[in-house]
Amino acid sequence: MIRSEETICAPATGTGGAISIIRISGSESLNIVSKIFSPVDKAVNISVNKGFTIAYGDIISDDEVIDEVLLSIFRAPHSYTGENSVEISCHASHYIISRLLELLVENGAILALPGEFTQRAFMNGRLDLSQAEAVADVIASTTSIAHKIAINQMRGGFSAEISRLRSELLNFASLIELELDFGEEDVEFADRIELVNIVLRIRDLSDRLSESFRIGNALKNGIPVVIVGKPNSGKSTLLNALLMDDKAIVSDIPGTTRDTIEDTIVIGGIEYRFIDTAGLRETTDVIENLGIKKTFEKISLASVILLIDEISDAPENINLRIRAIRERIEESEKKLIILINKSDTSGPEKQEELRGEIELTSSEDLLFISAKEKKGLENLRELLSITVVKEKISQDSVIVTNIRHYEALKNVSQSLGRVLDGLEKKIPDDLIATDIRQALHYLGEITGEITSDEILGNIFKNFCIGK
Amino acid sequence: MIRSEETICAPATGTGGAISIIRISGSESLNIVSKIFSPVDKAVNISVNKGFTIAYGDIISDDEVIDEVLLSIFRAPHSYTGENSVEISCHASHYIISRLLELLVENGAILALPGEFTQRAFMNGRLDLSQAEAVADVIASTTSIAHKIAINQMRGGFSAEISRLRSELLNFASLIELELDFGEEDVEFADRIELVNIVLRIRDLSDRLSESFRIGNALKNGIPVVIVGKPNSGKSTLLNALLMDDKAIVSDIPGTTRDTIEDTIVIGGIEYRFIDTAGLRETTDVIENLGIKKTFEKISLASVILLIDEISDAPENINLRIRAIRERIEESEKKLIILINKSDTSGPEKQEELRGEIELTSSEDLLFISAKEKKGLENLRELLSITVVKEKISQDSVIVTNIRHYEALKNVSQSLGRVLDGLEKKIPDDLIATDIRQALHYLGEITGEITSDEILGNIFKNFCIGK
Repeated sequence: MIRSEETICAPATGTGGAISIIRISGSESLNIVSKIFSPVDKAVNISVNKGFTIAYGDIISDDEVIDEVLLSIFRAPHSYTGENSVEISCHASHYIISRLLELLVENGAILALPGEFTQRAFMNGRLDLSQAEAVADVIASTTSIAHKIAINQMRGGFSAEISRLRSELLNFASLIELELDFGEEDVEFADRIELVNIVLRIRDLSDRLSESFRIGNALKNGIPVVIVGKPNSGKSTLLNALLMDDKAIVSDIPGTTRDTIEDTIVIGGIEYRFIDTAGLRETTDVIENLGIKKTFEKISLASVILLIDEISDAPENINLRIRAIRERIEESEKKLIILINKSDTSGPEKQEELRGEIELTSSEDLLFISAKEKKGLENLRELLSITVVKEKISQDSVIVTNIRHYEALKNVSQSLGRVLDGLEKKIPDDLIATDIRQALHYLGEITGEITSDEILGNIFKNFCIGK
Repeated sequence: MIRSEETICAPATGTGGAISIIRISGSESLNIVSKIFSPVDKAVNISVNKGFTIAYGDIISDDEVIDEVLLSIFRAPHSYTGENSVEISCHASHYIISRLLELLVENGAILALPGEFTQRAFMNGRLDLSQAEAVADVIASTTSIAHKIAINQMRGGFSAEISRLRSELLNFASLIELELDFGEEDVEFADRIELVNIVLRIRDLSDRLSESFRIGNALKNGIPVVIVGKPNSGKSTLLNALLMDDKAIVSDIPGTTRDTIEDTIVIGGIEYRFIDTAGLRETTDVIENLGIKKTFEKISLASVILLIDEISDAPENINLRIRAIRERIEESEKKLIILINKSDTSGPEKQEELRGEIELTSSEDLLFISAKEKKGLENLRELLSITVVKEKISQDSVIVTNIRHYEALKNVSQSLGRVLDGLEKKIPDDLIATDIRQALHYLGEITGEITSDEILGNIFKNFCIGK
């Protein structure tokens, strides 16, 4: 039997807790489960149960009761996968879960691969590919913004629009190919003005989406921040002060404690990830001075650079350090924030004086702080949140977070650029048709209208078991 | 509002996985959930949904979609707790779970305490107390035998019989108290022969059950085994050989890997727990010789003592060591097994000769093994399984595994002993009535017919959240 015709099963919940769910999907789901299930109400026969109903009873093996369970019954096509499905809600015991899976396999099910339920949902048209990919993002999201973007994408996001525009373009491609069929006859089925119009619209969307990837990727994976500065300027004190504050506001609802994520803070629903701060903790002399290679490597990985100086530093030295970093980050959209630490050790006149002597570009910012006294940290948090995410991320924001989509969109833009260029230069229609086909191909890769086993394999292998 | 009238909520599944379940129970469950739920099918109104049905839709907060979920709807009294209940099946994201719990609390629910769902099931008469206690045991069971006993108890076990016998005894108690009301008149409402009969029946059951606790406790918590012997006799090699064998047969169904339980092996569904073997691993000279105090402490904790000697040892020395241990364990029902290690280094004649010279009692066993070559280990496993659990544990075996029940049963037997004694010695009826009342009290404690906040608090505080 080919795999997609098999009935699959897997545990869908994590370890521990009170309840576990075992998910079964495939045409034989109800038949297999009914062989091991004995309803408490003998009038119940799950083979004839409607979808979206629950049955209560025992899982039985050789007259031995393995557990008392609830079955949630779904009938094709009204289920997550689009197939007949059953979810067994059992006691969260390793022993019971193992026995249930063994019984399901003995009765004809096979163990599901990672992501196989979602892959079936895609194959059965319940989700397009970018929606299916977003399911994993929804589960992995740890901040409100990352969660919003993922939920939005799971619910359709930009893929519906891409799919619609693609089918318009597909129509033009067919018309042009029809013209080619007529060979020497000078017919024009595809209106060239309308074609330019649709190509421009798709390229605009494509550019806009791939432009959003920079921020989307940062929102999904956390915005990389690096703290640099000379030894003893207070780098580790600043890091600890920022992290400690954040730990205190982490939700303490019982049962929801997340694994401590080292060296990240969340401001306004966005995660900021401090790069390679292990050294800062252990010793302060890892970053000997701004000239060393390691510091520049870190800067190359960061979106935000926090340069930490001291209020007692000579302004010309501060300016030297700023210029050294500025040279490295020019034209890279990286954000440089200069923090003058230990500013509680002098009065406001000194601060004003220093402010006058430090040379900044319009995209740079200067803040006076005291890491030790936790002063000015609120200003820093605010600056981080408004500078990095310039526009407010609304529920409807269309943002690409997936590098596969980003690469496909880049290819779409390039192909469509060639189409526009070709139309202007009046190159032969068959060459234009080739470029359109290519754009159609890349658009189709995003939504999964065009796909391959390799692409699907790569996507779903990173899902968890039971999803 | 008193707590039992509140609607409670908690996550019921463990961390990780694809799906999480949030459980809500209480009269307001459906009203609270309906405030944050928007069904996909607008014709659905969960406030009027029947029990044992499922609804599909979005969890909404201020027009923002938090997640797409399934709701399982249960109506009082047909639910786990006996109250209106909803189970929300959402994506297994920490962020989503936190937000859902926040929303439920904002809309009037309170966070559940550990075991509060099961406590409500008990309060609402869905389970008696010993059944409720067994729910935690079902979840915690790691072996087939422990699981069987726990499931059997969760489904009623001995508590139905105790409850029935208790109400018969209660009837007699009332009759005797009625006699007392008549004071000087010489009436006898309670047939003394029937009373002796029922008291004997209850005491028999009570003795039988408390007797089963020794094995029940071992089956639940693992049978404690200790390996003793002189340095370099092969104690650590034997331990590793036993453990490694067992690790190899652990089920490797994906997603079900249990946390490695150190130093336990499972034979025939029963767990054997090696006591304090850390020293065996690190060094072989922790147990210097059989004379030291530490070894005797370990022996006092064990049910099985494996004494390991070498084939080259002088028989008189082996006998000395056996006698030293035997003196310590006399009359304690501990099992002593003598293992002659490195027996592959000599022929069968030498083994026969040694067997003739070693003096054993009928309850002791002698085995020739080679820990290094893994020879004779099968015999050891078989000996362990048949000696420790003499009777086969069947599905219907009535076994007490809970120390609270054990203590109550001991008290029942004592009180009833005094009743029988008093009846024989014709002591005044009011004293007999007092002893009967005491027995009734202890019987009621087992099933929860008599209980206190303290008892309930102690029982349910050890449950997990969401159960």
